[in-house]
Amino acid sequence: MSADQLSTTFQALADPTRRAILASLTSGEKTVSELAEPFEMTMPAVTKHLKVLERANLIERSREAQYRPCRLHPQPLKDVDEWISEYRKFWEASFDRLDDYLKKIQTKEKNEGND
Amino acid sequence: MSADQLSTTFQALADPTRRAILASLTSGEKTVSELAEPFEMTMPAVTKHLKVLERANLIERSREAQYRPCRLHPQPLKDVDEWISEYRKFWEASFDRLDDYLKKIQTKEKNEGND
Repeated sequence: MSADQLSTTFQALADPTRRAILASLTSGEKTVSELAEPFEMTMPAVTKHLKVLERANLIERSREAQYRPCRLHPQPLKDVDEWISEYRKFWEASFDRLDDYLKKIQTKEKNEGND
Repeated sequence: MSADQLSTTFQALADPTRRAILASLTSGEKTVSELAEPFEMTMPAVTKHLKVLERANLIERSREAQYRPCRLHPQPLKDVDEWISEYRKFWEASFDRLDDYLKKIQTKEKNEGND
């Protein structure tokens, strides 16, 4: 996967409507009009978002049926997950430090309570 | 965290130089000139990228020292990780199906080899 593919994925995800479309596809494939329904958007506006998602390979559109239903294609999200896993230790480390701090505070309070 | 914060994070990550800056900060805090060094970029170009990362809360810049070193602020990446975790079952399911298919093929080949 090229660095540009990752940029294309992030760019496609940087929009709440496009993320809502992906969320909607987690329950199964849907037609464009089924996807448009909850957004109070014109069909061309929804089609534009679908094109961005399709170019980013985040959705696939069937070529068989005339109404071309869309389905989720999770591979680019898996690539984002792999990219982000390199950073996971940083917030885990921050929370470990916070946890240590809270434990110290609790021990201190407990000891003071025993005085 | 608002949906817009997530969009801002994705927008900031949709650039290979900005992702390289974040990767560079995983080894500890760095000054702007230290960050600019590997990119063959002008200082204003690097500063522009740093501003995008800072607005997205992905880096923090010290207000103390005059050279204002930058450090990684992993919280927005943690939020992306949480968002993406909802989709993890989709690629795990795809790989389970692939795994099942490969096991079937292997069993078939083994049985044919025994004939």
